[in-house]
Amino acid sequence: MTSETQLPDPLWNDLKARWQELADLGGIGSLLGWDQSTYLPAGAAAGRSRQQALLSRMAHARATDAGYGRLLDAAQSRTDLSPAQTRTVALARKNFEEATRLPADFVAAWSQHGGDSYSAWTTARPDNDFARMVPFLEKSLEFSLQAASYFPEFGDPMDYFIDQSDEGMTAQGVGDVFSKLREALVPLADAVTLAGPPRTDFLSRHYPTATQLSLGESVIRDYGYDFTRGRQDLTHHPFMTRLGGHDVRITTRVKAGDPTEALYSTLHEAGHALYEQGVLDEYLGTPLGGGVSAGVHESQSRLWENQVGRSRAFWAAYFGKFRDTFPEQLADVSEDEMYRAVNTVARSLIRTDADELTYNLHVITRYELERQLLGGQLALRDLNDAWHAAYEQNLGLRAPSDVDGALQDVHWYFGSIGGAFQGYTLGNVLSAQFYSAAEKANPGLENDIARADFSRLHGWLRENVYAPGGRYTPAELVERATGQAMTVEPYLNYLREKYGELYGVN
Amino acid sequence: MTSETQLPDPLWNDLKARWQELADLGGIGSLLGWDQSTYLPAGAAAGRSRQQALLSRMAHARATDAGYGRLLDAAQSRTDLSPAQTRTVALARKNFEEATRLPADFVAAWSQHGGDSYSAWTTARPDNDFARMVPFLEKSLEFSLQAASYFPEFGDPMDYFIDQSDEGMTAQGVGDVFSKLREALVPLADAVTLAGPPRTDFLSRHYPTATQLSLGESVIRDYGYDFTRGRQDLTHHPFMTRLGGHDVRITTRVKAGDPTEALYSTLHEAGHALYEQGVLDEYLGTPLGGGVSAGVHESQSRLWENQVGRSRAFWAAYFGKFRDTFPEQLADVSEDEMYRAVNTVARSLIRTDADELTYNLHVITRYELERQLLGGQLALRDLNDAWHAAYEQNLGLRAPSDVDGALQDVHWYFGSIGGAFQGYTLGNVLSAQFYSAAEKANPGLENDIARADFSRLHGWLRENVYAPGGRYTPAELVERATGQAMTVEPYLNYLREKYGELYGVN
Repeated sequence: MTSETQLPDPLWNDLKARWQELADLGGIGSLLGWDQSTYLPAGAAAGRSRQQALLSRMAHARATDAGYGRLLDAAQSRTDLSPAQTRTVALARKNFEEATRLPADFVAAWSQHGGDSYSAWTTARPDNDFARMVPFLEKSLEFSLQAASYFPEFGDPMDYFIDQSDEGMTAQGVGDVFSKLREALVPLADAVTLAGPPRTDFLSRHYPTATQLSLGESVIRDYGYDFTRGRQDLTHHPFMTRLGGHDVRITTRVKAGDPTEALYSTLHEAGHALYEQGVLDEYLGTPLGGGVSAGVHESQSRLWENQVGRSRAFWAAYFGKFRDTFPEQLADVSEDEMYRAVNTVARSLIRTDADELTYNLHVITRYELERQLLGGQLALRDLNDAWHAAYEQNLGLRAPSDVDGALQDVHWYFGSIGGAFQGYTLGNVLSAQFYSAAEKANPGLENDIARADFSRLHGWLRENVYAPGGRYTPAELVERATGQAMTVEPYLNYLREKYGELYGVN
Repeated sequence: MTSETQLPDPLWNDLKARWQELADLGGIGSLLGWDQSTYLPAGAAAGRSRQQALLSRMAHARATDAGYGRLLDAAQSRTDLSPAQTRTVALARKNFEEATRLPADFVAAWSQHGGDSYSAWTTARPDNDFARMVPFLEKSLEFSLQAASYFPEFGDPMDYFIDQSDEGMTAQGVGDVFSKLREALVPLADAVTLAGPPRTDFLSRHYPTATQLSLGESVIRDYGYDFTRGRQDLTHHPFMTRLGGHDVRITTRVKAGDPTEALYSTLHEAGHALYEQGVLDEYLGTPLGGGVSAGVHESQSRLWENQVGRSRAFWAAYFGKFRDTFPEQLADVSEDEMYRAVNTVARSLIRTDADELTYNLHVITRYELERQLLGGQLALRDLNDAWHAAYEQNLGLRAPSDVDGALQDVHWYFGSIGGAFQGYTLGNVLSAQFYSAAEKANPGLENDIARADFSRLHGWLRENVYAPGGRYTPAELVERATGQAMTVEPYLNYLREKYGELYGVN
């Protein structure tokens, strides 16, 4: 711990040993998952699931151990803890309550239901049959409300779910942010999509995949991703995972016919990884040793993917290298055309294919439906109709099928409803707020980026966002780093300025 | 368990659940080790060691659990167990005793000493300073003798160590085998090395590594290695490891300037893997679910590497493919030249570089020194001199330095002396005995191999050697598969015939 938390005594040492073990078990679990997604032979899947279940049981037993609970009680009754120690114990207590309050039978039944629901979804989806999933969703809602009821300190079940991933945020607070966003984004998306699309033909030429991958790795090396403490591999769905204190890996996917797929996956996951790699060494192996919330985490993936990676300055730095690497594919393409192509805006039905601008409308739609479901204002049998109505209102589109409607995302079909989506858009909002604070503190930052020099940006983020890990609540972190509470203004300014200029609209 | 072991009752089910957990913890530990050797980022080494230590502690706690001991007691007092159940419980008991008899303090001190000794060796070796290691070796010998003393049922400490890896074998039995081997091999090696070496210049041309690797993988796919239950990756030292019931991976290393390096490493490790992949499904997750001894294991790596992979028939099958793959490198090379080149015999100082024929003399030398050390006939301060004398006698060579003498192998410097080497040569002996039995049962087997058809050989080995896993003791397995106890005759016949023909000697 930092000097402010130096209080070596038996109680603290016991707690640190427990936390280190929990962190190490978490890292082993992450390795099992990473290997499953990267290199596990097909025939070994069932055995791996059994290993994961065993490790989960062993980790759960340690995380809920009564002796550990007594250590936490003892620590919380102490009056001589430093602020950092107090925060560490508070986070540990939050995790302990999460792990202990739900009865074991309830957790087992819920987990079983989650598996059944997911299985059913994998066949209902190709059959385009939302109705078949309604009974599963109804049970999922029941389980979710029951889970929230074990945490009566949250009045609104949605608050409980939001707090799990975005500590301290409430449905009210998220709702306010999202209302402001929608109000601004719907007309902006209308105007931009009226303006007509840029040239993108060259993005579907053939780009050899190995070259794409090494090019992407050279960019994130420039960003500051530390390959001595991580690596990149290929998976079907890209992700970032912490396998140990100094082992933060990312994955990507690559398509020969679309060079933006691998590049922006790599930049996105590298953003998550820069956050995890930047946490102070002394916090590793404690409850402070990782990113503090889904929203702040997503802010970093989005910042490095979008604010940086889709900027004019980025392409000023890298277009030459890209054209040197792919001389034939980019022979008839200018830097400006590349910049415009990677910022194409189009209203679409699929969240994961959406551009920077319309993505938020997909998220807001889901968030509002979730809130109505949890609040009892919307019945699950009406979800698909409500989905279509909301898409017409927010995106001006209607899905021709359930597959592209309420069956689209896996999130609700894992057995839980609530809190699954808001982090994505909170991340977008915060990405701009952090970036604008970094710009203010580092005049001329854009010129750095245009030279592929990320040292000042990465340095500022490391100091103000990454190093603290979980030391402060998300709200405290945002306030300390940017001088104000979360606000949509920097994000809206960023979008208006960028897309106004790109598409000649205001 | 097989039908002969169907005895579903609570006791048996409890034991099976314990065994499955121990196997799964073993698999997780293997994954930690596999990842450490293949893909772990350099900066993550310390964290990985801590994860491994934690998992070892948790696995050890389960392996030595008093409740588990009581279940074994109960099972061993039962009179209604099938023979397979009796064997399963006996092996479980053997593992339990191994894990419980050594006092925890003793194990901790020994392990600490092992680390210190290994550290010291890594600097004494470049300094060519055997004398510096003498105090460490003396302590290692003390620890080893002390460990053996916890197993008074073995009269000779060497018997205890041999039994750990080659159940049921004794120092006397191994010594008898080795005497016969030496008697035959010293004059054979003399005669062969007098005959002058074959042409090998083409083996140091440039062979692109990726092509070498896929060629090697195509060979072991022909052998019967199942890539849906395993994979091959690159490591500094090749190895085979079981990460789960259906997850048996191998590694290899590759040199552009020597195509035999990757090929024979791959064939060797694939031999180990074919054994592990061939164990009956119903034995997986029980004490029967793996190879039964070091000697039998090594017999399979050697059989597929040497009996098969260095045979005339093998090159009849594959030389065309090799020349198609490397047309320039092999333009002036005949099939016969390739066969001769991969069977070059040369007396050398280094065990790991030794050929099929002289390798055993390296092993026998070490085995006899180990036996004298454990028996008190040789003092550690005299080990290096005894080493040089034994090399002059067995191989007609004297190392110019300690580095190529008693400092050569890491085995003794991990803190333990005894039982480290004999498995290699027992494996060679058994490889020929199994192969000759397979030939007898499958007339014309060599013609199969010359067509790259390994189905009869693999089928016979699977049925007679692999499927049983630990169901029989090594001695029972050899007797059942070959109709006789372990014997050196098939191996000596194989070597005399092959090298007699190759080098024109008798």
